[in-house]
Amino acid sequence: MASRKKKLQGLVAATITPMTEHGEINFSVIGQYVDYLVEEQGVKNIFVNGTTGEGLSLSVSERRQVAEEWMTKGRNKLDQVVIHVGALSLKESQELARHAAEIGADGIAVIAPFFLKPWDKVRAEELLDGIQEKIPTFQGLKFSDTDLLDFGQCVDQNRERQFAFLFGVDEQLLSALVMGATGAVGSTYNYLGKKTNQMLEAFERKDFSSALNHQFCIQRFINFVLKLGFGVSQTKAIMTLVSGIPMGPPRPPLQRASREFIDEAKARLESLDFLSSTYLKDRNLESCS
Amino acid sequence: MASRKKKLQGLVAATITPMTEHGEINFSVIGQYVDYLVEEQGVKNIFVNGTTGEGLSLSVSERRQVAEEWMTKGRNKLDQVVIHVGALSLKESQELARHAAEIGADGIAVIAPFFLKPWDKVRAEELLDGIQEKIPTFQGLKFSDTDLLDFGQCVDQNRERQFAFLFGVDEQLLSALVMGATGAVGSTYNYLGKKTNQMLEAFERKDFSSALNHQFCIQRFINFVLKLGFGVSQTKAIMTLVSGIPMGPPRPPLQRASREFIDEAKARLESLDFLSSTYLKDRNLESCS
Amino acid sequence: MASRKKKLQGLVAATITPMTEHGEINFSVIGQYVDYLVEEQGVKNIFVNGTTGEGLSLSVSERRQVAEEWMTKGRNKLDQVVIHVGALSLKESQELARHAAEIGADGIAVIAPFFLKPWDKVRAEELLDGIQEKIPTFQGLKFSDTDLLDFGQCVDQNRERQFAFLFGVDEQLLSALVMGATGAVGSTYNYLGKKTNQMLEAFERKDFSSALNHQFCIQRFINFVLKLGFGVSQTKAIMTLVSGIPMGPPRPPLQRASREFIDEAKARLESLDFLSSTYLKDRNLESCS
Amino acid sequence: MASRKKKLQGLVAATITPMTEHGEINFSVIGQYVDYLVEEQGVKNIFVNGTTGEGLSLSVSERRQVAEEWMTKGRNKLDQVVIHVGALSLKESQELARHAAEIGADGIAVIAPFFLKPWDKVRAEELLDGIQEKIPTFQGLKFSDTDLLDFGQCVDQNRERQFAFLFGVDEQLLSALVMGATGAVGSTYNYLGKKTNQMLEAFERKDFSSALNHQFCIQRFINFVLKLGFGVSQTKAIMTLVSGIPMGPPRPPLQRASREFIDEAKARLESLDFLSSTYLKDRNLESCS
Repeated sequence: MASRKKKLQGLVAATITPMTEHGEINFSVIGQYVDYLVEEQGVKNIFVNGTTGEGLSLSVSERRQVAEEWMTKGRNKLDQVVIHVGALSLKESQELARHAAEIGADGIAVIAPFFLKPWDKVRAEELLDGIQEKIPTFQGLKFSDTDLLDFGQCVDQNRERQFAFLFGVDEQLLSALVMGATGAVGSTYNYLGKKTNQMLEAFERKDFSSALNHQFCIQRFINFVLKLGFGVSQTKAIMTLVSGIPMGPPRPPLQRASREFIDEAKARLESLDFLSSTYLKDRNLESCS
Repeated sequence: MASRKKKLQGLVAATITPMTEHGEINFSVIGQYVDYLVEEQGVKNIFVNGTTGEGLSLSVSERRQVAEEWMTKGRNKLDQVVIHVGALSLKESQELARHAAEIGADGIAVIAPFFLKPWDKVRAEELLDGIQEKIPTFQGLKFSDTDLLDFGQCVDQNRERQFAFLFGVDEQLLSALVMGATGAVGSTYNYLGKKTNQMLEAFERKDFSSALNHQFCIQRFINFVLKLGFGVSQTKAIMTLVSGIPMGPPRPPLQRASREFIDEAKARLESLDFLSSTYLKDRNLESCS
Repeated sequence: MASRKKKLQGLVAATITPMTEHGEINFSVIGQYVDYLVEEQGVKNIFVNGTTGEGLSLSVSERRQVAEEWMTKGRNKLDQVVIHVGALSLKESQELARHAAEIGADGIAVIAPFFLKPWDKVRAEELLDGIQEKIPTFQGLKFSDTDLLDFGQCVDQNRERQFAFLFGVDEQLLSALVMGATGAVGSTYNYLGKKTNQMLEAFERKDFSSALNHQFCIQRFINFVLKLGFGVSQTKAIMTLVSGIPMGPPRPPLQRASREFIDEAKARLESLDFLSSTYLKDRNLESCS
Repeated sequence: MASRKKKLQGLVAATITPMTEHGEINFSVIGQYVDYLVEEQGVKNIFVNGTTGEGLSLSVSERRQVAEEWMTKGRNKLDQVVIHVGALSLKESQELARHAAEIGADGIAVIAPFFLKPWDKVRAEELLDGIQEKIPTFQGLKFSDTDLLDFGQCVDQNRERQFAFLFGVDEQLLSALVMGATGAVGSTYNYLGKKTNQMLEAFERKDFSSALNHQFCIQRFINFVLKLGFGVSQTKAIMTLVSGIPMGPPRPPLQRASREFIDEAKARLESLDFLSSTYLKDRNLESCS
């Protein structure tokens, strides 16, 4: 499993699983997808087979194949590949974890139980208490809630440990950075990675007004699509628009994004300058619209 | 798939999947379990690999084996065997459905999407609208909510169709019977089947005060265990107590029922006369405590 | 306060507070309203200043005046008048309770705390435990939830007491009758009282298929308006349509029912025969549409 | 009403309403309370009769008296006094608003409808759209949710307006400051105002590590009491401990904080150095324990 020295930092794109019109996995575009993330978005870490990747809609064998393809195409190009191996069946989860280790993944991630649950609600802060004794290879947390008290206490109580504290609510990442987030995992980094990196850089140099400008710019887009109804289907459509790489429809039970959604999202992306070559080429772009 | 003539009626036990102390499936007691349901509880229909059976905690191959074992041991003893084939991966669900047909199951059941969802909330009444055109072999519904407006409208709008309307909230079954329920699927029918059958019989002969007495008697037990914290782990422990057949611990992420729970549940079962030979032998028993 | 001998039974209409176009209380139609309930709907009990009556949107002095007007106009016509005196301020609630006693109300009702709360969730069954020691004049409960385990246990645990168990979910009253409800409080009894009384009568004579027909008929209407968006504003519009008595608009923050709602509700009322003279005159009407 | 020039900034203490052991308002300590806030906590703005002040548990006349007392005792000591005038009855709310203007309050605040509601959920961002046309004297927003997308968009879309954006989730104030909050309203500023002011100062001078240390220190305390069960009753007990001013018990329906809570909170306050003279005197204190 992943070496402890190489700490996960910065942006991690929750990868989409490209599909054909018939809902089969389209492995052929994954190489192109890797190059796009690295060259156009400046994103060198990926989170494979998560919610955005419809990981739980895939069969176990499909999940293995998808993981292998990303490892192969990402070699010498990506910094870290994290494979989500969570499943409702612990046996299947264990099989996927062993497989991830075999193919040399940099790490695995597992979603908390969401069907049969040992507890009603878990606070991340309590989960982390003594976790290294239980999981010696534990490296960090993806936190996808807006409860920044819980998130903050995770950071506060684990200062001497070298954990990665990755935030998963893209539209308010800035609020987690100030609370100690070391990086972020999200679906929008597939197509807003460059803009989000600009925000991270501004935050690093303590240029708050720029950082906030970038955050607001990102919020304008997310706020807009959320009102239209935003999920994995819509993410696939948006990534197809911005990257030009065909992501295809989602697999059932999800339904394809509507024509109306695609048209409205495209117009908004243009008005925010997220489709222009400027956005994709000029790394010094500071603000939107 | 199941013939349309044979309509599912009465009680359907949501079967537990017996396990060893190490969390492996204990196939050896399933034959004994069938006999217990039929002879002691008067329950001749089962729902296999559902939530109570930890179906989603099993691997696909385990689910196939469990289904086969129930079919084999239930032959000529059970009226109907329904196999739950729902899975987060549609491909796995399809494989399990084909397998259920191959082994001659009387029917299959599928849980609604609960992770990636096409809609926020579905009303059963709307789902049933025109369902026979979409699913020609559709036979009925397991309704596990307390919204009896939705349930009632399912019955009202499908009167000419021979659907089975099975209610899944054991503690208030009587309220659904009066609203047109044709049967019930639940975990408590594993050990309170006999008492519940007494309620069904009283309802049939329009003896409401007896039916209500039986319902209250059942409610006293369920109300008691709900306050202690009641789920699949606790159901396994209670069934072990009442039937004497070892159901074993649940599989993670669930945790074994506590010693305290078992002791308190046992005392309550005794006070309600659910452990006595009277309860299990005398079919004319009318009231508890 | 009310004598213990006179037990509240049957239907209780949660009265609307008629208002002028300017949102002032229209006392002038209350006498006509009383006659309509008694003569056309066969409803002789009322629940004043509850949610349907916008009680909490009225000032304390307005609540006193409304209560007085119903008492005056209902004298010798109504069986029981219950005044809701719940308020967020205990002092105001106490003042309203004293006033209700002074004007000779048959009973008072109080909503459970809903802003600052001593507990997260209260089970009615636990509230009733030993309540007569705390409230010697306690007469009964209005239960407005679909948790019929809790409702059933309220009935089961208080059998020897002469409590009224009034159900508040109109669209599934039949399911509560079989669980021991002694009556019902609701807004639909203002205009569907006659039909609901037919259901009660059928239930009394153990004619379930008729009772269920009546319940389904009522559900068809409620199910229809719920999908359009159904609340106090819509109730005022519907009552105006059915009774011909102008109920006026709601008071802010509520907004007046839309023209579209009124048109669609009217068409549905007609299709279900709830606007016809047949419905309002022929007490033997058994089914709708 | 308040002049537009004087913008509300920094910390605003949501004042507690001191009560006697018999639940009557204890006006006698309000003068001392004002001095404590200003001199010990460095808090010069107050929010009167809000949730923390049990405003909705008071009668209208009590609310008027409480507002008057704070205005009188705060004169020439406090910067701004905001009176919460929200009530379920619009008429009462209007009366309280007129009264606040008469006594010269700097502003009024109104809670959104929470019983009868015109809409299911409101996004603050949408509420602010064109609000100055509807409310010419509108000055700002108290935002008490963790949805910082909504909060951020409120700030982003109203940049040219001089609105106050006050955050109401004390335990994660730092995350809102970076998103553009101009101040904060909360109950903890009654006793953690000094520490929170240290955080605001560190943030102003871009000393993030100190700001985060202060936030974590505050989170440790809030996280601790939240697990014990934390509400208005507990706030009254804690303020009594820290300030030495008797706040008394809450008014029903709230119940007095338990002895156990008080003992545990006291020990935690001491361990975090929030009871020591150092905390209350030395304004350079940088970190806790």
